[in-house]
Amino acid sequence: MSDNNIAEKIGQKAAEAKKAAGKLAIASSKTKNEALLAMAAALIENSAEILKANAEDVTAAKEKNLKTSYIDRLTLNDKRIEQMAEGLRQTAALPDPVGEGDLETLRPNGLNIRRVRVPLGVIGIIYEARPNVTADAMALCLKSGNACLLRGGSEALKSNLAIFNLLNEAAVKAGIPQGAMQFAEFTDREAVGAMGNCRGLIDAIIPRGGAGLIKYCAENSKVPVIETGTGVCHTFVDETANLTKAAEIIVNAKTSRPSVCNAMETLLIHKNIAAEFLPRIAKILREKNVELRGSEEARAICPDLSAATEEDWRTEYGDLILSVKVVPDLDAAIEHINKYNTGHSDAIVTENYTNATRFQREVDAAAVYVNASTRFTDGFEFGFGAEIGISTQKLHARGPMGLRELTSVKYLINGQGQIRE
Amino acid sequence: MSDNNIAEKIGQKAAEAKKAAGKLAIASSKTKNEALLAMAAALIENSAEILKANAEDVTAAKEKNLKTSYIDRLTLNDKRIEQMAEGLRQTAALPDPVGEGDLETLRPNGLNIRRVRVPLGVIGIIYEARPNVTADAMALCLKSGNACLLRGGSEALKSNLAIFNLLNEAAVKAGIPQGAMQFAEFTDREAVGAMGNCRGLIDAIIPRGGAGLIKYCAENSKVPVIETGTGVCHTFVDETANLTKAAEIIVNAKTSRPSVCNAMETLLIHKNIAAEFLPRIAKILREKNVELRGSEEARAICPDLSAATEEDWRTEYGDLILSVKVVPDLDAAIEHINKYNTGHSDAIVTENYTNATRFQREVDAAAVYVNASTRFTDGFEFGFGAEIGISTQKLHARGPMGLRELTSVKYLINGQGQIRE
Repeated sequence: MSDNNIAEKIGQKAAEAKKAAGKLAIASSKTKNEALLAMAAALIENSAEILKANAEDVTAAKEKNLKTSYIDRLTLNDKRIEQMAEGLRQTAALPDPVGEGDLETLRPNGLNIRRVRVPLGVIGIIYEARPNVTADAMALCLKSGNACLLRGGSEALKSNLAIFNLLNEAAVKAGIPQGAMQFAEFTDREAVGAMGNCRGLIDAIIPRGGAGLIKYCAENSKVPVIETGTGVCHTFVDETANLTKAAEIIVNAKTSRPSVCNAMETLLIHKNIAAEFLPRIAKILREKNVELRGSEEARAICPDLSAATEEDWRTEYGDLILSVKVVPDLDAAIEHINKYNTGHSDAIVTENYTNATRFQREVDAAAVYVNASTRFTDGFEFGFGAEIGISTQKLHARGPMGLRELTSVKYLINGQGQIRE
Repeated sequence: MSDNNIAEKIGQKAAEAKKAAGKLAIASSKTKNEALLAMAAALIENSAEILKANAEDVTAAKEKNLKTSYIDRLTLNDKRIEQMAEGLRQTAALPDPVGEGDLETLRPNGLNIRRVRVPLGVIGIIYEARPNVTADAMALCLKSGNACLLRGGSEALKSNLAIFNLLNEAAVKAGIPQGAMQFAEFTDREAVGAMGNCRGLIDAIIPRGGAGLIKYCAENSKVPVIETGTGVCHTFVDETANLTKAAEIIVNAKTSRPSVCNAMETLLIHKNIAAEFLPRIAKILREKNVELRGSEEARAICPDLSAATEEDWRTEYGDLILSVKVVPDLDAAIEHINKYNTGHSDAIVTENYTNATRFQREVDAAAVYVNASTRFTDGFEFGFGAEIGISTQKLHARGPMGLRELTSVKYLINGQGQIRE
């Protein structure tokens, strides 16, 4: 299909979503929750249909010789479909942010002013491999009263379409306005550009994928973009750290799930404990198959580390690789982190109160930890019940984005004929 | 200066602001307040210098035959300088949003999670004629802990530079980090584009000016933009309205200050009262020199109205012009508003409870009024003590933006060695 055609079709879908958004915005929680439960039931009842579509995607991916880890993320089975359904049910059980008030005031002139949460309107979500994102994104947008336009990756297209059509049909049957959920079946990069041009139709775009996709959206979209999920996360082991705790935290942050954005990529060690701690942690990490790349000072202590380059400090490995730097003091640790982090999650391990406090104040990131693993940056772990991603920007939302972060506010002003002097 | 040179200089200024932003972010309220008071004192002490620079701008504007209203906004005098100084003092007296917490939780695993307000970082402010914006913007950014890069319009350049240099010097003397406040003396449109390219250096751009400037920024900036201040505001007079109140509200909303964004541009009247109310309000408005442009139904009642075109419904006149439409019912009024408004402020005049409630729920705007003038949409009138503009977008902030809206959040997580399962 030509670019113009794609842009036109995307524009039509965005316009349909926009048209339905006003109705969805005032739908009751009851209707939305019933729809989510009906969607969960439809998913389980029709799992054979979804697995069939998914098998076609998986076969095609294998024929293209895609990476095993990629094919794993793409593959659905009964358990994963049950997890998707459970996600829909859990979203139904969460409190609805729409209509919540966070400010009410009576002005001297008698005007009553309230600020209440309202949906954003239409949310565009652009994602890559995993087909379960289709169900997740539909659930979170629906519960927060937002219409959505989804655009998934090419490898999961058949799976995504099967899930989308099934869930959309169930939702509409349960009373959700027709057109409020849209799926763009165009997998070219042009479709991403076309969504970014839908100013006035789409209120926000959330890209969920690699750094390249996010950068492309942020730099090219005329619709506001919420950047999520790029994580160059650090752990700094201070000279007063409990080294047993430090080792546990580091192993957890690096190895428990190296592919995710809250995994650690760089370890900073205070010079006064480096000679003792670095060989010890290096041994533990190597036993876990972690490749270590060190600064000059680190290699002076452990000469068998390969040399870290400037590029290493900037890299989200997403893999069992860790860069290690020995730093002279807390100031140098904070300076390194603020230079190279992506504003996601950074941790200090320390027993020193002042250093803990300074680290939390001075490190510029969405989540700043004392004596805990960066792996906790997550909507579920934070108690939000769900998340659409981890925002690494400062505007609108920062950190795990739950249902509340998918809303805006509106001021309601009630008077008795007041006019302004 | 060539475009490349401008881009390079803007980049340097943004980088200097970014460098100082970390220090300013952790400056105490005491230091910031002392700086604001010192800035106010410096303004008064050196008013002669500012008036001299301003006189040169005014002379040049007159030579260019610029509009009287424009020259009026450009002109400073002792009273206006005192108002600027008073603005600085009032900002010093406002509560500091930085460090305020709005969430604290203890998770089952013992992690303590807090969400606290932090500055955005570096804010770019792009504005047009009025030189007092220089002092306002510096004060609000400083108090909220944000570094800033200001870019004012060409006609006020000498005034802006005089004010900026004076205030910056006073602030630095009072302990504000050198470089935290920057002024870009490049008045070409290229400078606006260059600021929009400063991703990673500037955290948000707020354009304060006409619709053209705002659209240019929103469509071309790679830095997130907060859109402010475009107002096509409506008042709908329902069939149950108290017509005396309605007339007062309409006169106030249209004529008390027609050039501002919260002034009314379109009047909608329920058909059941149009024959009575339209001639009455038309007479009152004409006595106030308001030009009226009507829909077909409106002209059937008042044939002397000129015909409103499709373009009229979309136009922010900013002048003593009002478009008038007779609508069959509340639904038609809401539909018209949601089609043509800019998401700023809209009002209903009604005595009907259900219609009041429906209007507030269904109209999509930052501020939705019952029985009051739209002119109240303002940070001071809302009790925020100050404002940098009225956001007409839904992301990050909506409605009057005070100090709180110039901040982001950060999660602080305190543990005792927790790792994730």
